[in-house]
Amino acid sequence: MKFFHTADWHLGKLVQNVYMTEDQRLVLQEFVKAIEEEKPDAVIIAGDLYDRGVPPTEAVNLLDEVLETIVLKLNTPVLAIAGNHDSPSRLHFGSRMMKSNGYHMAGQISKQLEPVVLNDEHGEVHFHLIPYADPSVIRYVFEDEEVKTHNDAMRKITDEIAARMNANARHVFVGHAFVTPTGEKEDNTSDSERPLSIGGAEHVSATLFEKFHYTALGHLHQAHFVLNETIHYAGSPLKYSISEEKHKKGFFIVEMDEAGKVTIEKRLLTPARDMRTVEAKMDELLKHPINEDYVFVRLLDETPVLMPMEKVRSVYPNAMHVERVIQAPIVKDGEATEKVARTKMDDLSLFKAFYQEVKGTALAEETEEIFLEVLQELLQKDNEQSAVKIAVTTNRAAKGV
Amino acid sequence: MKFFHTADWHLGKLVQNVYMTEDQRLVLQEFVKAIEEEKPDAVIIAGDLYDRGVPPTEAVNLLDEVLETIVLKLNTPVLAIAGNHDSPSRLHFGSRMMKSNGYHMAGQISKQLEPVVLNDEHGEVHFHLIPYADPSVIRYVFEDEEVKTHNDAMRKITDEIAARMNANARHVFVGHAFVTPTGEKEDNTSDSERPLSIGGAEHVSATLFEKFHYTALGHLHQAHFVLNETIHYAGSPLKYSISEEKHKKGFFIVEMDEAGKVTIEKRLLTPARDMRTVEAKMDELLKHPINEDYVFVRLLDETPVLMPMEKVRSVYPNAMHVERVIQAPIVKDGEATEKVARTKMDDLSLFKAFYQEVKGTALAEETEEIFLEVLQELLQKDNEQSAVKIAVTTNRAAKGV
Repeated sequence: MKFFHTADWHLGKLVQNVYMTEDQRLVLQEFVKAIEEEKPDAVIIAGDLYDRGVPPTEAVNLLDEVLETIVLKLNTPVLAIAGNHDSPSRLHFGSRMMKSNGYHMAGQISKQLEPVVLNDEHGEVHFHLIPYADPSVIRYVFEDEEVKTHNDAMRKITDEIAARMNANARHVFVGHAFVTPTGEKEDNTSDSERPLSIGGAEHVSATLFEKFHYTALGHLHQAHFVLNETIHYAGSPLKYSISEEKHKKGFFIVEMDEAGKVTIEKRLLTPARDMRTVEAKMDELLKHPINEDYVFVRLLDETPVLMPMEKVRSVYPNAMHVERVIQAPIVKDGEATEKVARTKMDDLSLFKAFYQEVKGTALAEETEEIFLEVLQELLQKDNEQSAVKIAVTTNRAAKGV
Repeated sequence: MKFFHTADWHLGKLVQNVYMTEDQRLVLQEFVKAIEEEKPDAVIIAGDLYDRGVPPTEAVNLLDEVLETIVLKLNTPVLAIAGNHDSPSRLHFGSRMMKSNGYHMAGQISKQLEPVVLNDEHGEVHFHLIPYADPSVIRYVFEDEEVKTHNDAMRKITDEIAARMNANARHVFVGHAFVTPTGEKEDNTSDSERPLSIGGAEHVSATLFEKFHYTALGHLHQAHFVLNETIHYAGSPLKYSISEEKHKKGFFIVEMDEAGKVTIEKRLLTPARDMRTVEAKMDELLKHPINEDYVFVRLLDETPVLMPMEKVRSVYPNAMHVERVIQAPIVKDGEATEKVARTKMDDLSLFKAFYQEVKGTALAEETEEIFLEVLQELLQKDNEQSAVKIAVTTNRAAKGV
């Protein structure tokens, strides 16, 4: 039995107000191509197909297209669950009708915990599709008042499955949760994941999954295993936050033998545009070759930069964010500078930096004197009057007169 | 060939802030029962399955249940289109996967205009499922700049269908539009329908449908035919506004013979609670037997009624609205009354009516004097001071002292 394990597509995702739909479409085309080539027996999507309960229609259309291709054109069963970003009932709609075509979507948890059974030459593989559910839902569905935390809820579910497990079959668990080796808090999150609960009782112990031959997880956006190789996060197919810059995005190809032993291959996906940090002075940055990546720019300039995003986008048209690493220093005529926040700069330093930026040359001594004179004058007048003067005199000073 | 024709379910509908979901569930159960008994070859739902693009999850679950029962349990094909209240892409999701099960949903219009073909002993019946679409969408999809109005759009579609129509087959058109005999404006709307366009270019001529053996329409909530018996609105299965009070709600059972000739039977549906007007004086109304209907009460009382909804709901717990037919009259000691709006009543008349309502007896002369005295006093003082007094003296007067 060979299956693909992916998760956290987050269709309809906005990053820094940019819709990722086109990037998602491209990377999913690559994913579909891999299905065509590898011909897996099934594709697992472990939750967060959409980024929100009511996704934009473009995302609905994209998911519809991709699923249709995998299920109808490539005739490959899809085993999917709702994640914490998905709307259980909206994803669940039509699922019983689509089942017979090979699209198995568990949107809402049911007490029956009926697995999807696929066969290979060695016999049955049971896929236990467990959508994300709040502990309160599990408490209600299984009528168990003891279920309080996410770990309680997952223990309840895995115990129930274990109690009715066919020992002759192989078993795959598909879930969407924050799993750590022992259920203790761990800091391997990304900024694009949404916490499952406030206060930290969201962690689930990986030991609960030891009874399964493979556990296909979704929720954390970095691909990694927990406790051992059989308990895996697929990670998201794209970077959805700059905190995921170092992630290698892709999916897993899992081959399961007769005994249920798995061999796991990671397959990388190539995004149309990478998401990465660029650190440079503006002068250098403007000499970079033009590049479409989603860059987060850290400017190393010591002096303020005017209209930085406009300049950056002449080279990186899809730049998402620009910030200055070093805040404006006090400039003292060629002396070594002291790094201080701009708010702490005195008026003259601020003006010098501004002058340098606008004129491209340092402030002449004469101009400095005029500035200080005017400033002194202004400080003595009342606010309303001085507002007018500032405009006039600043203008004069900027012209170097 | 026998098929059911229904439309305008509006699942998720709120009437006067009351969710109709339970009433919808009951009436749809009756509808499903009729399918069980009559065993039609297909069920047509001519748009507005939901009341809005993003319906509440209860509505999604209800539609899922009903469709699953009809399609999977009763093995009856469903031929449905999106109406102007539905979200085309959300309803379209999964439709190609569900097709093979017999759920045919046209959410988005496609240029191909491929009909759904069903067979009976006489041959093929082609069902042309045309979802609601704005004229701008038709202009874009068919690349025809001439399409401006709804009538242009429908002519374009029906012409395209006619051009590729199989003359040996029988044809059923399923659409969602405001159809009148000649495409002129007609006033047969209900308050619960949403206008298709502002300014009145929404009407479509029934003559466009003469080439079809039957036209199953949705949009107008009253069941009726347009031009001739073969062009029918099914109407909504429930009353969704008091303006639909006189409607007989139900659906059509259409039998089509070898030649495409139809015989049409109207089957009524019985709502759990009727929607109707009750006109009475409060005293009489309070003697009515307790009744669960959604009543809109018109009170015939001549004097103001305190807490009318609270009183009405002691008899009609699901009352939706209460109004007084006759506005408060000026009461002149037994004289014939002149009907004037409450805003025009003088202070003494208002107080008399209030006193009568609270105490159940007429105002004594002595009390009237006290009231007038206090009122006079109050009018002379400034606003802020008198505010306090009003409370105190009104209280005194109400006690009859």
